[in-house]
Amino acid sequence: MKITIEDVAEKLMAANKLLITAHVNPDGDAIGSTLALAALLHGKGKTTVVMLDDKLPKNLSFLPGYDAIVRPEEGEKADAEMLVILDTSLDRIGEVAKAAEGLPVLNIDHHISNDGKADFLYNDDRAATAEIIFELVERLGGGFTPEIAMPLYTGLATDTGFFKFSNTRPETMRAAARLLEAGVRPERVSEALEEKPESVVRGQAAALQTMELSYDGRVAGLYLDKALATSLDTTEGFIDFVRVIEGVEIAVLLKEMDENFCRASVRSKGLDVSKLAMKFGGGGHLRAAGFPVKKPLAEAKKDVLEALGEILG
Amino acid sequence: MKITIEDVAEKLMAANKLLITAHVNPDGDAIGSTLALAALLHGKGKTTVVMLDDKLPKNLSFLPGYDAIVRPEEGEKADAEMLVILDTSLDRIGEVAKAAEGLPVLNIDHHISNDGKADFLYNDDRAATAEIIFELVERLGGGFTPEIAMPLYTGLATDTGFFKFSNTRPETMRAAARLLEAGVRPERVSEALEEKPESVVRGQAAALQTMELSYDGRVAGLYLDKALATSLDTTEGFIDFVRVIEGVEIAVLLKEMDENFCRASVRSKGLDVSKLAMKFGGGGHLRAAGFPVKKPLAEAKKDVLEALGEILG
Repeated sequence: MKITIEDVAEKLMAANKLLITAHVNPDGDAIGSTLALAALLHGKGKTTVVMLDDKLPKNLSFLPGYDAIVRPEEGEKADAEMLVILDTSLDRIGEVAKAAEGLPVLNIDHHISNDGKADFLYNDDRAATAEIIFELVERLGGGFTPEIAMPLYTGLATDTGFFKFSNTRPETMRAAARLLEAGVRPERVSEALEEKPESVVRGQAAALQTMELSYDGRVAGLYLDKALATSLDTTEGFIDFVRVIEGVEIAVLLKEMDENFCRASVRSKGLDVSKLAMKFGGGGHLRAAGFPVKKPLAEAKKDVLEALGEILG
Repeated sequence: MKITIEDVAEKLMAANKLLITAHVNPDGDAIGSTLALAALLHGKGKTTVVMLDDKLPKNLSFLPGYDAIVRPEEGEKADAEMLVILDTSLDRIGEVAKAAEGLPVLNIDHHISNDGKADFLYNDDRAATAEIIFELVERLGGGFTPEIAMPLYTGLATDTGFFKFSNTRPETMRAAARLLEAGVRPERVSEALEEKPESVVRGQAAALQTMELSYDGRVAGLYLDKALATSLDTTEGFIDFVRVIEGVEIAVLLKEMDENFCRASVRSKGLDVSKLAMKFGGGGHLRAAGFPVKKPLAEAKKDVLEALGEILG
């Protein structure tokens, strides 16, 4: 059932013991939103537990409340009156669903892709779930303590790429301004969010060695063979290194995952790459797509570049 | 003579023909502030010329008014009643000083290092000069047209590293919010600011190959020999690639500029590196310093690492 933000505030205040969760593979918005909501409710005299079914990213350990986050244990039943799911739907909270079996579910999410299956759902198209929690703090009062302000700022900064993405709205910036006033230091949050293991930076260096420009510099690609691709923990953000090159309209990251199997990621600065992804049996948006290519790297590269040539016209 | 922002508004309104300039090697704040001020004054019926004594960064060409920026010509005398210098002092505007000889100088700058030699100076410790121009637009009225809003947003974003640096204040974020309301698209500005020539990305790739960690990962360095260092147009931002590594407390970029001559840049996440710079005859701040080392690369590296060892304790 869809409810209003007034209803959300009322339901939160009516409960005394709340279990708060978010999606697996939690990011700054998932963790920031759960910690801020827990701190808000704690300030109202409630008992709260934040439970996430995943390892937590180490670089968010500066957030107050991080150490109190628990993982569900085998057969555990949560002692709570209500499950609050943030930043995702019921289907992406892992084993927390089992620990919370039978509890009424209140779901707060900014993703319009939310599956709508919660008992009570507040779903609004904002930059981040943290923006919704920010509004709840304003409605319920109690002020932006450091335990609330830092996680909320981290949530906003994460989902907007530090206020760079197109989802950044005036209200997002004004919320961030209010949080700076509460004492958040933006350089601390950005330093934490930017942190990477040495292995990832070494991976970036190796991947950059494979850079090739095509079509008079309109396409820039990174082409990782199986040895390199399978040695990397992550390639997140790698495509951005070549996307930023002057004159590049489309950036490609091609990874050979196995014999005869590659994965492609494509980013464009304007041209529609969604059809390309569909052609190869993948999916995506106008400017960002991903798809598989069931060939070895050299052949996959040839196919992808050929298809990109058609888009470039 | 130091004046108030009310005085600045008055002086601008009293003149009819204004020559507007900023520092050589102009960045997003210098160009953004001059273009926004010119658009504001133009809207008030004034005649304005923006003159900068340098090549303009290509990636800022999306800014309205960019194409109308002129360079001073040999022996040229500007037809204006007043020279307005933004984002620097009189000593860093190059040949514009000659073209404007004899004109009264109004100086608006956010750098507290301003030399104070202008006839009229408004000097305030803000995140960017664009923040001061923003206030002038609000005071003088006329609204945030695209010709004013885009350059101002670009100025704010440039000098705060897209709202990441410690100089970002609540007022900075609120000004940015107002500019988004006026129609600025943050993803367009960020894409433009991030743009780099292919050669710079290739330089990054080559520099990253030299990465070395020392002192159990507390120091990360890039060590560029003469062949590499002298082949690069810029190394701006290179140090950030290793600064972000988990556990790194100090990042170093060492460049061999000539036989027996290296330049070092050092960034710390908290430890004081200013004394190190002084020891080598350079300068800097607590967390960012630069200095020369009059030795070949291998020896310079040894000396710098030894000195860093003392700081790490």
